Amino acid sequence: MAKQEDNFKNVISHAKEYGFIFPSSEIYDGLSAVYDYAQNGVELKKNIREYWWKSMVQMNDNIVGLDAAILMHPTTWKASGHVDAFNDPLIDNKDSKKRYRADVLVEDYAEKLNLKAKKEIEKASVRFGDAFNEQEFITTNTRVVEYLAKEKEIRERLGRSLGNGDLADVKALIEELEIADPETGSRNWTDVKQFNLMFGTKLGASAESAMDLYLRPETAQGIFVNFLNVQKSGRMKIPFGIAQTGKAFRNEIVARQFIFRMREFEQMEMQFFVKPGDEMRWYEHWKTTRLNWHLSLGLGKENYRFHDHDKLAHYANAAADIEFNFPFGFKELEGIHSRTDFDLKAHEQFSGKKLQYFDTDENKNYVPYVVETSVGLDRMFLAVFATSLKEETLEDGSTRTVLSLPSVLAPTKAAVLPLVKKDGLPDVAHKIIEDLKWDFNVAYDEKDAVGRRYRRQDALGTPFCITVDHQTLEDETVTIRHRDTMKQDRVKISELRSIINEEVSMRNWLMKTI
Amino acid sequence: MAKQEDNFKNVISHAKEYGFIFPSSEIYDGLSAVYDYAQNGVELKKNIREYWWKSMVQMNDNIVGLDAAILMHPTTWKASGHVDAFNDPLIDNKDSKKRYRADVLVEDYAEKLNLKAKKEIEKASVRFGDAFNEQEFITTNTRVVEYLAKEKEIRERLGRSLGNGDLADVKALIEELEIADPETGSRNWTDVKQFNLMFGTKLGASAESAMDLYLRPETAQGIFVNFLNVQKSGRMKIPFGIAQTGKAFRNEIVARQFIFRMREFEQMEMQFFVKPGDEMRWYEHWKTTRLNWHLSLGLGKENYRFHDHDKLAHYANAAADIEFNFPFGFKELEGIHSRTDFDLKAHEQFSGKKLQYFDTDENKNYVPYVVETSVGLDRMFLAVFATSLKEETLEDGSTRTVLSLPSVLAPTKAAVLPLVKKDGLPDVAHKIIEDLKWDFNVAYDEKDAVGRRYRRQDALGTPFCITVDHQTLEDETVTIRHRDTMKQDRVKISELRSIINEEVSMRNWLMKTI
Repeated sequence: MAKQEDNFKNVISHAKEYGFIFPSSEIYDGLSAVYDYAQNGVELKKNIREYWWKSMVQMNDNIVGLDAAILMHPTTWKASGHVDAFNDPLIDNKDSKKRYRADVLVEDYAEKLNLKAKKEIEKASVRFGDAFNEQEFITTNTRVVEYLAKEKEIRERLGRSLGNGDLADVKALIEELEIADPETGSRNWTDVKQFNLMFGTKLGASAESAMDLYLRPETAQGIFVNFLNVQKSGRMKIPFGIAQTGKAFRNEIVARQFIFRMREFEQMEMQFFVKPGDEMRWYEHWKTTRLNWHLSLGLGKENYRFHDHDKLAHYANAAADIEFNFPFGFKELEGIHSRTDFDLKAHEQFSGKKLQYFDTDENKNYVPYVVETSVGLDRMFLAVFATSLKEETLEDGSTRTVLSLPSVLAPTKAAVLPLVKKDGLPDVAHKIIEDLKWDFNVAYDEKDAVGRRYRRQDALGTPFCITVDHQTLEDETVTIRHRDTMKQDRVKISELRSIINEEVSMRNWLMKTI
Repeated sequence: MAKQEDNFKNVISHAKEYGFIFPSSEIYDGLSAVYDYAQNGVELKKNIREYWWKSMVQMNDNIVGLDAAILMHPTTWKASGHVDAFNDPLIDNKDSKKRYRADVLVEDYAEKLNLKAKKEIEKASVRFGDAFNEQEFITTNTRVVEYLAKEKEIRERLGRSLGNGDLADVKALIEELEIADPETGSRNWTDVKQFNLMFGTKLGASAESAMDLYLRPETAQGIFVNFLNVQKSGRMKIPFGIAQTGKAFRNEIVARQFIFRMREFEQMEMQFFVKPGDEMRWYEHWKTTRLNWHLSLGLGKENYRFHDHDKLAHYANAAADIEFNFPFGFKELEGIHSRTDFDLKAHEQFSGKKLQYFDTDENKNYVPYVVETSVGLDRMFLAVFATSLKEETLEDGSTRTVLSLPSVLAPTKAAVLPLVKKDGLPDVAHKIIEDLKWDFNVAYDEKDAVGRRYRRQDALGTPFCITVDHQTLEDETVTIRHRDTMKQDRVKISELRSIINEEVSMRNWLMKTI
């Protein structure tokens, strides 16, 4: 665990030091749970977004894109259920004036009981290693059973109370368990209240005409309200999908884990419209397809797993997460949800407009069912970045830091290095850049010894270093060094473009996804 | 003028009918001055953004990208001046409860005087065409002079009052001129008040800890607050630039002209950091460079002009617009501003942090000067879309609608059409798509007679139509039709990829910008 935490700290500091991610407004001491993508981060993020977009939209005849605005008519969020139900139950401590999520306080308490049970078992294993003592065994066992039963009871009661909207009982539970403010120890609590997670704002200037708006908490609704406009103007036939990437905002009380849970974040979503009854087939199709897309990046099959939901959201009849092995354990990376016709029907009801599709094969109208694939772009960034960051021990015993990003996603594809800053080598290096830069991002680096420059490019994730030396002046060849193997080949300058394109082009990587 | 208005209406309806732009939340009767980019619009917009990004970031060694969050620390907007000065002077009519921009009411009045003067001159030209009447000439001339003098007086007084923040005098001016509510004729006005154009929101849940935030009204400040982080982590040497694209928000009272002035819009900005004293040279450099970028798209040199600012914003020592000939006349498309060290110094002052650069050549620290290039992505979209939309009369007297987009920006690069829906032609068409889709967006179209399909692809802006006919089955050739010339060539299927890539690849278009 300590090792894991160290690793995560290392990820965060590498992201800042090498220009991938800065805390937002850092000169003003930052804005909590908001981050800026720096000069290398923006390229990595763009590349992930583009790789997703091409594989969803460009590769699929029956999927088109959309870019709906962040501001939407507020009735959208009545229809979707966000105005009424997108809440966290909060409680204030009257002494410390600190605010907490009431459910998290209770869950943390239950988790502690679980840990106690585990510790008892561990201690007992040690004690019983040599000699078995029946009395002790019974005592231990009784305690373990008690802890676990209590844990279960608490979790069930919390789930029931939240499900019924019985916030008074959540408060009662906190009091019965004598849960104290984790920071001050005070047990002087207010009542529990629901707090809506949407950011609000106001449109228009006049008091009479001002309209309460929300920053969208998800991008999906922008697709649903445009469903019929897209279907008709694009003459789409079911089954078809609408894909979208864009920002969403959630006023999280406790946002944490770097860019994993931010108040401003970006989603990459596709809503796939199908004939009612066909949804389970497409749900399975998209589970497989999306996992294959992730696997195409080569971060390791062992880092992914499916988690099928037991409890389903009110709009879903099946749901699974693709979980990824983040530096803090397996967590949701992408969700695949069979959303039924819940959203379209809700928008029909609230707008008074029909949102039906006329199926020419069936010769009838219906509201389509929807299968959604939804991945967090920032989470994808974290998954790729954290997994690629490695400390390697080399043959000579020295270590190097390498960011072995999938080359299709790397911010810079090649760095061109003159071996020395004289004898015309920098000019040749610049000429090579002039030739390559039409195709991809190329950097020039002349500072420090060439070994240090290799290390620096390794840490930036640059797949290729091209070194111009004195032999270059004679025979127009250079060395090309591969980031991951550190192997160097001597090649003709005229071959560079195709060697690098072959390895980094999105075209070739996309072919791996099928 | 009527013709111009018709053209503009045509642009708006074509954008909706062919899936480029929909009004936001249309099923809820829309959200004023907010629009969604539809399935073809999103691709055109992405292509414009990418063309800008590559030409700024990929092509320039000394320009890097950034993607700062929309939410920033609120002190940012104190430092930039937006909290205090990003206002419109508003006035309410007490009877109608309508709200207006006070300055616009006065300017409209002044404009009417100008029109009256023009009409007098026109009338007189007609009257004096045959016979000259000295007395009449003097009377007319006196009236014209009076109108223009009054216009000038009003405009100067308005400018002075707004400049001094003397809103009482703006109110007095409205009363003296007896300006009435344009909709109801009432002259029962409130006082004039400043209204801030930033959208506000609140971060965090607890009343004590809630923080007033703004949706950024411009992207530039995200670059300034990150200036030193980027410079240091990227080891940038002056002169260098930071480029960014992203959303910004302004709570405009009167937003109009389709996507020209929206409440939610996207900017493409680059801030170029230079040595103090060098800024005028770089200002000229970027004026030229940016105009050349626009010209590379081939929309016609006559559609662009520079407009140098007489009045400068408080932060600038030189400023010019690149104006474009929109459907409603020449208006700002891009701004090039020499912003001095105003922003960085303001952030130094408000943050207490040094934002200085150590110049190793000069061996001293300084706050750099900044030259900004700022173009509205939505305005670029409108410029490209409206100019490309043409009604053409063909040789046979029939007409066609063609959207002659620069092929590098076209949403779909080629449509593949089987001449008939049988004899295996659709299969061959699909096989061609399978082969081409790795490189660019390709569409399949089998509905309607082939002539109608050509027209439809013309209206969508697709540069190439590839038709599979019976000869294809014999010799593996197809016809390729060019959108703009309607010329058709017979070519081998195996040549398609390179023929189309040659014409549409961003690589080749970027080469035209230098």
